[in-house]
Amino acid sequence: MTTYIAVDIGGTRMRAASYSADSLTPLKIDRIKTRKVGSPPEERLIKLLGRIWPEADPVAAIGMTAPGPLDPTTGILVKAPNIPEWIDFPLADYVNQHFHVPVLLGNDANLAALGEWKFGAGRGHHHLLYLTISTGIGSGVIVNDSLLVGAHGYAAELGHITVLPDGPICNCGQRGHLEAIASGTAIANWVKTEIARGIPSSLTVIEELSAQTIAEAAQQGDQLAQEAFQRAGTYLGQAIADFLTVFNPTIVVLGGGVSLSYDLFSESLQSAMRQHAFDENYLDDLTITLAELGDDAGLMGALALARDGHC
Amino acid sequence: MTTYIAVDIGGTRMRAASYSADSLTPLKIDRIKTRKVGSPPEERLIKLLGRIWPEADPVAAIGMTAPGPLDPTTGILVKAPNIPEWIDFPLADYVNQHFHVPVLLGNDANLAALGEWKFGAGRGHHHLLYLTISTGIGSGVIVNDSLLVGAHGYAAELGHITVLPDGPICNCGQRGHLEAIASGTAIANWVKTEIARGIPSSLTVIEELSAQTIAEAAQQGDQLAQEAFQRAGTYLGQAIADFLTVFNPTIVVLGGGVSLSYDLFSESLQSAMRQHAFDENYLDDLTITLAELGDDAGLMGALALARDGHC
Repeated sequence: MTTYIAVDIGGTRMRAASYSADSLTPLKIDRIKTRKVGSPPEERLIKLLGRIWPEADPVAAIGMTAPGPLDPTTGILVKAPNIPEWIDFPLADYVNQHFHVPVLLGNDANLAALGEWKFGAGRGHHHLLYLTISTGIGSGVIVNDSLLVGAHGYAAELGHITVLPDGPICNCGQRGHLEAIASGTAIANWVKTEIARGIPSSLTVIEELSAQTIAEAAQQGDQLAQEAFQRAGTYLGQAIADFLTVFNPTIVVLGGGVSLSYDLFSESLQSAMRQHAFDENYLDDLTITLAELGDDAGLMGALALARDGHC
Repeated sequence: MTTYIAVDIGGTRMRAASYSADSLTPLKIDRIKTRKVGSPPEERLIKLLGRIWPEADPVAAIGMTAPGPLDPTTGILVKAPNIPEWIDFPLADYVNQHFHVPVLLGNDANLAALGEWKFGAGRGHHHLLYLTISTGIGSGVIVNDSLLVGAHGYAAELGHITVLPDGPICNCGQRGHLEAIASGTAIANWVKTEIARGIPSSLTVIEELSAQTIAEAAQQGDQLAQEAFQRAGTYLGQAIADFLTVFNPTIVVLGGGVSLSYDLFSESLQSAMRQHAFDENYLDDLTITLAELGDDAGLMGALALARDGHC
C-alpha cells in the first residue's frame, strides 16, 4: 500500500504522520520538540520521520509545512521565526537525501488554507480566502483550484497589507499592517493603551493581557474588552472588502485562536465588509465561515501537498 | 487556414480584426462607432464583425474585450460604463447565435494585461501585475501563467483598493481608493484643489486641467505640476508594495495615458515601493516597466483569449 507522509514544523514542536492514499486517519503519528541543546532541528526532524516511517509500505511523497518565508519551488526555507538554526536552509533537499522520496515544502498559513480547502470548511469551492488570526495574521488563497504562491512562494501575506497608513508599527517594522491592528497581539496592545489612558475595565487587574483573557472579559460584559474585538472586526471587515476586490472568492475561512471568539466581532466585521465592498456583486454568493480543522489544518495541507505533488 | 477574431469594445468605438493562427498582423481590421441613434450597439457589433469576417477561411473563435464588470464564465456583461443599452447583456451568446463559433469575453483591463503578457512587455514572465493609469486605474494579474478572474470575473480590480481610508471619494462612491488618489482624474483634481488654495502655478491660466496639460507644465518646470505627479507616484508605489505582498510577481507593467509621463513619477513610485515593501525578497528580481502595446493591448488580449480558448 502506497503511503504519504505529512509534517507540520512549528517553532516549538514538529509533528509527522503517515497516511494511506485515501484516508485522513493517520497510520502512525508522532511529535517531537523542534529545538534541544546539542541536537540540530534538522536531525530531530529525521529522527521524528524515522519513528512514523512505514515498516514495509513504500512512501510516495513527503509534504512539509514550516513557518516563515520559504520558496516552494526550490524547497529552501529562507528563515523560520523561532528556529534560528535555519537560515536559507535547503530543507526539502536535506530530507530527500535521507529518504530518497519527493519532498514538497509549503508555508504554514498557505498549507493551512490548502488543508481547509481540501478537507475542511472550504471543500467544493474554487476560489477561497483563508485568514488565520492569532498572535499574528497569516493567510492563504486558493485561486481557481490552485494555491497562490507567486514567483518565489512569498505571495498571499495578507496580514502585511497596509490598512491604516498612520497606524501602529507591525512586527515586521512597517506601519499600519492588518496584523498590527487586528491580530491577537494588536487587540491586547490596544486594550493596554486604553487602560493606560484611564479607560475603566475589569481587565485593569489582569497582569498578562492576551486576546484570550480579553475575550473572557468581553463574554462577561466588559465594555472595553468588547470594543477591542469590535474594533479588530471593523478593520478585518475593511481589509476583507479589499481582498474580495482582489480575488472575488466565494468563501472566506477564518481560523486561528482569535477566530474562536468570532461572536465578539462577527457583526462589526460583516458590517464593515459590506460598507467597504467595491460592489454588491462581490457579496452575492459569499460565505464567511470558521475553519474546521483547528491545529490540524497545516498537517492536512501538508498531506494534500504530498498527495497532489505540487502546491 | 483557420482564423481567429479579436474585438475591442469601448464606450466610443469598437474595433475588430481577424488573424491567422500564428501572426499578429491582422488579415482584416476595421472600426465602428459604438453608439448611434436608431442602431443598437449589439447590431453595430454584428455589422462590424461582418466587415472583417474571412470570405472563405473558417473562424475558430472570437475573443472580445469590453469595459465594466462582466462574467467571463457566462459571457454576460453586467454593465458597461458608457454603453447604457447593455445591462446584464448576454454578449457572448448574442454573438455566438449570429456566427455559430465559440465566443469568449474578458474585462478590458484584464485582457490588456493578457495582451501585454503574451505579446508585449511581460513576455516570458509567469507572475505579472499590470496597471493601466488613465482617467481611472484598471488592472490585470497573471498568476502562474493564468489570468486572475475570480469566481465571477470580478477579481483584480486593483484601482479600487483602499490606500488612504480618509482620502478623497472615488468614482465608485467609496473613499480613498487608489483610483481616487493616483489616476489622471485624481491628479487633475488635486492640482485644482491646490490652485484653489492659492498655490502658485503656471496652470492657473489653463481652463481645462487634465493629467496631460499638467504633465506638459511639469516638463516645463512647474513645481505644483511636478509635485502632483510625484504625489501620485508615492501612492502608486505604496499600493504596488502591497500588491507585491499579495502576488509576488516578477514584473509590474504600467500602461495608460498617465504612464507616458513615467519620468515625472518613477522616482517617487520606486522610492515608496521600496520603503513600504514587506521584505526585500519581493524586490530581488522585480522589473518595473512600461507597457509596449499601447491602445492595442486589449485587442491583443482578445486575440490571446480567442487562440487559447479560455482566460
